[in-house]
This record gives sequence, C-alpha cells and structure tokens, in this order.
Amino acid sequence: MQPLPSIATLAEQIRSGDLNPRDLIETCLARIEETEPKIHAWVALDPDRVRQEADILAKEASNGSARGPLHGVPIGVKDIVFTRDYPTRGGSEFLEDHVPDYDATVVERLRDAGAIILGKTVTTEFAGFDPAETRNPWNTEHTPGGSSSGSAAAVAAGAVPAALGSQTGGSISRPAAYCGIVGFKPTYGRASLRGVLELAFSLDHIGLLTRKVEDAAIVGSVISGYDPKDPNSVDHPVDFTIHPCDPAPPIGLVHALFTECTEDETRNITLSAVGCLESGGATTTAVRLPKSFANVHAMHRIIMHAEGSAYHADRFSRKPNLFRPNIRRLIEEGLLLPAAAYVEAKKHQAIFRRDILSMFRDVDIIVTPATPAPAPHGLESTGDPLFNSPWSHSGLPTVVIPVGLDANGMPVSIQLVGRHWDESRLLSAAAWCESVIGFDALPNL
Amino acid sequence: MQPLPSIATLAEQIRSGDLNPRDLIETCLARIEETEPKIHAWVALDPDRVRQEADILAKEASNGSARGPLHGVPIGVKDIVFTRDYPTRGGSEFLEDHVPDYDATVVERLRDAGAIILGKTVTTEFAGFDPAETRNPWNTEHTPGGSSSGSAAAVAAGAVPAALGSQTGGSISRPAAYCGIVGFKPTYGRASLRGVLELAFSLDHIGLLTRKVEDAAIVGSVISGYDPKDPNSVDHPVDFTIHPCDPAPPIGLVHALFTECTEDETRNITLSAVGCLESGGATTTAVRLPKSFANVHAMHRIIMHAEGSAYHADRFSRKPNLFRPNIRRLIEEGLLLPAAAYVEAKKHQAIFRRDILSMFRDVDIIVTPATPAPAPHGLESTGDPLFNSPWSHSGLPTVVIPVGLDANGMPVSIQLVGRHWDESRLLSAAAWCESVIGFDALPNL
Repeated sequence: MQPLPSIATLAEQIRSGDLNPRDLIETCLARIEETEPKIHAWVALDPDRVRQEADILAKEASNGSARGPLHGVPIGVKDIVFTRDYPTRGGSEFLEDHVPDYDATVVERLRDAGAIILGKTVTTEFAGFDPAETRNPWNTEHTPGGSSSGSAAAVAAGAVPAALGSQTGGSISRPAAYCGIVGFKPTYGRASLRGVLELAFSLDHIGLLTRKVEDAAIVGSVISGYDPKDPNSVDHPVDFTIHPCDPAPPIGLVHALFTECTEDETRNITLSAVGCLESGGATTTAVRLPKSFANVHAMHRIIMHAEGSAYHADRFSRKPNLFRPNIRRLIEEGLLLPAAAYVEAKKHQAIFRRDILSMFRDVDIIVTPATPAPAPHGLESTGDPLFNSPWSHSGLPTVVIPVGLDANGMPVSIQLVGRHWDESRLLSAAAWCESVIGFDALPNL
Repeated sequence: MQPLPSIATLAEQIRSGDLNPRDLIETCLARIEETEPKIHAWVALDPDRVRQEADILAKEASNGSARGPLHGVPIGVKDIVFTRDYPTRGGSEFLEDHVPDYDATVVERLRDAGAIILGKTVTTEFAGFDPAETRNPWNTEHTPGGSSSGSAAAVAAGAVPAALGSQTGGSISRPAAYCGIVGFKPTYGRASLRGVLELAFSLDHIGLLTRKVEDAAIVGSVISGYDPKDPNSVDHPVDFTIHPCDPAPPIGLVHALFTECTEDETRNITLSAVGCLESGGATTTAVRLPKSFANVHAMHRIIMHAEGSAYHADRFSRKPNLFRPNIRRLIEEGLLLPAAAYVEAKKHQAIFRRDILSMFRDVDIIVTPATPAPAPHGLESTGDPLFNSPWSHSGLPTVVIPVGLDANGMPVSIQLVGRHWDESRLLSAAAWCESVIGFDALPNL
C-alpha cells in the first residue's frame, strides 16, 4: 500500500494549490472502498456530502483563505464523539437513531481549523470491552484492539491521515500498538469531553491515532485547550511544538514493566528498540515506581466501574439486555459498589497522580512496552490494557510508536509517558525516537 | 471585656520591643482562667511550655531576629489539627491518647512564622454535628455553633487573637456568625489538609476565626500555599493583601437567600446592613443562582456522608458505639450509599463549581445572610449550615463578619463570597464592609 503524505505536507500542498482537497478525498474514499470489506473500520460515511465540503474548501484555498492549519485535511471521528451531520451510535443499539444536534467541542475545533470529518469510525459498545466487527489491517484474523478499533484500523490502512480516539483504560494506546501506528493521549483535562459519550468521566481522554508523531502534534494542538462547557476541562496553555532533541533525551526505564507480564518476543523487540535509542545517543536510567502503583489497576477498575454504572444506570434499569456482556458486567459490578470503595479509589487517584511524578526527577520521559504482547489472534478479545491504564488513572500524557514486527508480522510498539501538561517535551522525544528507530513497515492489505 | 489589639499591632509591638510576648501570653492565660469555666473553649493547654516558648521568642525579638510575621503571637488550634506537643483527640474517645509525631503543615507554617500555639480548642466529635461542651460567650445558654466551637468561643471571649478552624459544611462561618467574630475560609486547596483529621476530603477547608478581617488576612497568608504532601493542595500564588476599596465594591445579592429560610429579625438586620453598605457607596445588583444550586444541599450531603463513612469505616466496624449519635448516623448512612450516588454528587460538584461563577459576571462579591437565625438556645444542636455548605461544595472563599445584635443580644452576621483564588479582593471588600458597618459590640462575659 501507498501511505498518505504527512498532514503538514497535505495542508501545505492544499494551501499552495498543489493539491485539491477533492482529489485527496477521492484518494481516501478509494482506499476505503478497497480496504473496508476486509477491515470494517467505518460505521458512517457520506461520500457525497464530503465531496461537496471538499469542493467548498478547494474554492476557499484557491482564494487564499484557508480556515486553519487543517484546511481540507480529512479526519476520522470515533463514533462516541458527537457530530451533527452523522449519527453517533457509540456501537450501541440504544443509540440507533441518535443524531446529536451539536458537534462535540473537539469536532467544532477540527471544523474551525478547516478539517473535513470524513466519517465515523467503529467503536466497541460504549467504548467498553465487547469486541466490534473491525479487524487488524496487518492480519485480519487478529483484533485491532479497542475501543478505538475503527480509528486505528482506518489510519493503519492508509484510509485517513488521522482519527480521533478516546481512552479510559488503554483504548488509544492499545489499538495504536496493535495496528503499528502512533497513538497520542494528551494530559487529562486537555481536550474537551463535551459531546463525547462517557465511559468514566474522571478517566476519559480524547486523543489521536495517526501515522507519525508530527501528525499527532498538529491535530492534537487543534483539539486541545480549555472548554468552559466541560466541567473537567483545565485552563492550561497549549504548546505541542516538536523541538529537535539535542542532546538526545534522557529516558527512564521501569525494569519491572519489562520483565513482568511481557511476552518474551515482545520484551526482546522492545529492549532492542531501547538499545537502538541508546545507540542513537539517549541515556537511559532505571526509575522506580511509587508505592501507590501497587494497587493502581484495582483502583482504576473501581473508578471505571462506578462511573460507568452511574452513567448507564438509567438505560440499564430499562433494558439491561440491550447491553453486550462485557459492558453489562461492568455496569452490574459498578452498581454493587459501595460509595466508600469509590471514595478510596478517588483518593488513591489523587495520591498516585502526585506520587508518580517522583519518576520524573532525573528524566523527562518514561519508556515502557506498549502492550504485554502483539494483537491477539481472533476477535474474542480487544486485548489487555495492563500497561496503559496507569496513565489513564494518573492523567499523564502518552505517545505510542511502533518499533518492529514479531515473527508473525504483527507490530510491536513502545509507550512513552511524560509529565502532566508537558506534551511538547513528550512529543519531541517521541519524534526523536521515531526517527532513530525508523520503523516504516506497512500492512500488506 | 477588653479586646486584644489587632495582630498587626501585636506583632509590631513585639518586634519593636514595646510588648514582651511573655506579657501577651499572660494576658491570654488570665483571660482563659477567667472565662473558661463559663465557655469551655479549650481542650488542651500547657501554660508552662507556652511561657517558655514566649521567653525564647522574647529573647529573639530583643536580638532583632523575628522569625516571621507572627513572631510571638499566640494562636489557638482546633483539636482536629495535628500538633506534636499537644494531643489531638478530635473530640473522640477513639483518640484519647493520640499525640501525633508531627505538626500539620498549617501548624508548621504558623510556628515558622513565629506564632505560639497557645493550646487546642474544642471541636465537635470528628468535626461533625454532635454538640461539644463549649458555650456561646454572648450568652452561655446558647450554642457557639460547630464544629469549630472552641476556636470561635475563645476568639470571641478575647482569649486569643486568632484560632484555626475547619469547615466541611459551615463549621467556620456558622460559629463565627454565632459568636460575632470574623470567619475566613480560603478557596478549596489553598491551605494544606496534611495532618488534619478528615471529615470529607473533597469538602474540608482549613480557615480562621479572628476578631477583624485584617487579622484573618495576615494569619491566612501564613497558613496558605501549595503543599506537595497534600494531594489536594493546589499550586496557586498566594496574595491576601487588603487594598482600599475606592470606589466602593459592587456587591451581588441573591434575593432568594434573604427571603427563603431566613428568620424575620435576622433578615431585617441583614438587609439594614446591606442598606448601610449602599449608603457607604456600594452598588448592589441582583444576581441569579445557577440551576445547579437547586440540589446543592443534597449533593453536598452525599459527598460528606460517603467520604466521612469511608474515612471512619474501619473504626466503625470495630467499635460503632464509641461514636456519638450524629456522626454515627452519618457513617451508617454513608456506608449504605451506592458508588453511583457519590459519582453523581461529584459530577454535580464539578458542574456547580463552574456554574456558580456566572454569578460573578458583574460583581466581585456576593453578600448573603451568614445563617438563617442567630445561635439557637440550648446545646442540643450546633445550628444550621444552610447558607454555608454551598460554598464548601463549590470551594469558593468566604468571609463572615458581624453586623448587629438581635433583640436577645445575640450577634447577626453577613457572609461574603468571592471567586476562586480571589481572596485579596474578597478580603478587601470584607474589610471595607467591616469599617462601613462599624460593629464593635463585645460579649459581656
């Protein structure tokens, strides 16, 4: 397959008149037509309207009036994010006819920047753990991961240069890792959650699936920033500039994360990627997890179950059978939780958010395996968010980048974790790692 | 009775050598000896050690080396705040022999500023609603309010120039109002809660009881500021400077708060205080409560019960009968709450914190009655926090100042509410109101 050019290149070519947005849309639509029967990444597409939008944007560009940094660039949107022109079904039968009358704030910002919402991408039901129909472009017998399954598969298939995803446990990082692309989750509170179906409001993050780190930085800075309409949005200056890393970035490694729970082949590929970064000039330092890491998964689970069950309680009391088994179990378990358990989990979250910063005393970036193993075979599971949910719990920003392929030809990735609000440094380090490692394989789709 | 001079005056006289801290301590101790049999404000006092400290501070002052802005100034500390030299019993039989091995951060900061911890003041059990033995200095047949009962009574009795209090519902504002003194609660996250017994961690505030607004600003700025050891502490610059109000401050009034639930006489005295502010040059504007105010009390109650029950769950499972009836009922009810109810209450809190700011569009300060009525007769209840708990829920800073006496000679007070982190403006307006109203009555004790 032929990968799409970078977003910076596309935007520049559109602005300069070298590329007609309509032609770009046709390329994407053709690619979708070709791959969709195999990967099932899209849940709603409206080619005619998108063509009309592209024509309007083409005219504006030729008049020299670009709307913003994404003028004419097509973006996919995970189907839990409200769009006023497409239905937003969240993968659920409850929302079959649900066409919101407003755009989510992040969609509003994309449109204001000139982006074309190409269509809605498949999500697992309510962004939970019930696998959807999407398949992994590297091998359609494997899961693409979840819950941002369609966004990851569509980007990996070269059908769109970027797609919105969301993460409560590992729903951006995991599908990015399984599909061999970049997954970027900004700090909690960075990108507005207004107009996004909830899974667990104090863990939910909006982020991006892209081919390269630079693309994630460009689209990420468009969707980020304070939104007074989201009560959990934080007013903090947005600067996602990627700076050249000179000298190479000091990297922290948590040895336990490499040895425990990581499959041998994945560990070896990850460690040789780390070796490659060291050869490239990066210094690596062993860092220690804080005590509060010990029960981070249990506490994260309590918050997710409690908040998820509160959000769905009304639907659940009316039609429990309309939920799929995994999300239903999450709600059932959540509704049985006593308030005191959730109180303790929220206290743990505040303590962990603070304690985890001790890891960044001497380094700016932590590197871990992105997942314990590559995408599992079969569509029965969306995989394991073990290495991702601590960063959803702490709200720290993360970037996942692919580093190699295993013996079965499935991607293996690393996960980079930065300090709160320190996305510029995180993205700069991630871009540096990406160029040093030079992973450029593409799925044979 | 003879009121103590202001803290600014005391500190200046000590620095200049005009006042020996030992003499000031003797004045306070004499006043305590005189009033304590009637009001029962103190739960722990160690006159000999305090005299020794005063002598050391006197020597330092005479050498020209004052430790800080409170050098030699005695402060009372509510007995839920840890002190390494006094027991911290929190009004509970569970903590009979509890002498913490460290000072709470706020106590550390007071000592660093040169303050003398005069003793521990009576709290209701675990800062809840079970009345303690303290009586109101204006009429010992009335409650002083709770839960900072001893701090309010001691300051009102002229036994100490300032005392630490804490508020989860109305535990600073209400006793201040009932005892005719100033109560100051800074923004949530301002003053560290490390080393303070919890009632409900996301509602708990540390603040001050003083005679005048200026005293509250001085001590408040000493105890405030980021504490990395408190996971809920917020890093925000502290500036509690009182500026002259010229022109007079624009004041917002919520008419519903004056008409609903406020006793006639209290309303009339409050409204004539507002009239007095208007005559002094203040413009008043009617402001509207946001929709989310409607269930603020119910949501506040759920958070308090859920967090309180989680905090005490272990003690409760071991010895339920050691709790008094009101705190026991709070724990029992809290332990029955489902997590989903607490989730909804926390979501409401975030929305209310945001929505309430709409009231400050045209004004910097909101004025309300401080309490629905003056201190109730008898010690069966600590009174009603109805007008105070919304500001604990929202985390907005408040100042209570006395404005008059009712027909029974009991104080009536107003409550001023400011924007988050805007204490300087709030305290400036409060000092202006205080000087315009000129309330100077003292209890006849």
